[in-house]
Amino acid sequence: MTAPGYSDHKLRLQRRLRRIEGQVRGLQGMIADDRYCIDVLDQIAATTRALQSVALEMVGDHMSHCVADAVRHGGPEKDAKIAEATAAIARLVKS
Amino acid sequence: MTAPGYSDHKLRLQRRLRRIEGQVRGLQGMIADDRYCIDVLDQIAATTRALQSVALEMVGDHMSHCVADAVRHGGPEKDAKIAEATAAIARLVKS
Repeated sequence: MTAPGYSDHKLRLQRRLRRIEGQVRGLQGMIADDRYCIDVLDQIAATTRALQSVALEMVGDHMSHCVADAVRHGGPEKDAKIAEATAAIARLVKS
Repeated sequence: MTAPGYSDHKLRLQRRLRRIEGQVRGLQGMIADDRYCIDVLDQIAATTRALQSVALEMVGDHMSHCVADAVRHGGPEKDAKIAEATAAIARLVKS
């Protein structure tokens, strides 16, 4: 197995995910404290944006490493990698 | 302060958020384990969907309690509540 496209900044990604984990814990606290619906909704939106931003960073990494390598090698692997990435991006956009 | 629209099922919401918190922790584990980018992306998409689904439940609660109450009382409060909810939904859709 080759290293994943994000291996150069695993620590940064994990730090961002740890912060998102804290945001989700914060949401539970807001509900425990009976905070106003709109305030909770805004925090959910912020958490979703943070997650999407991590996803976009991973998409970029994947393109510039895994997909770019496959393109350089050419052949059927190239088309397969591009189709796979496109399908994953579609699932992300729909999420 | 009146009870928030979701007060009838705080426990269910908190249980769902606890599960989402676990998903975010799982994402950190996937990165620690060098899992393939596309698999991580799919897990991020699933986590985002779970968060959006909690948000939609809260929107429904907010409409059927806070907004519905304001509509029953009428006056400027009604328009304000509807505008506030619409703006929060717009932030959610953009997130």
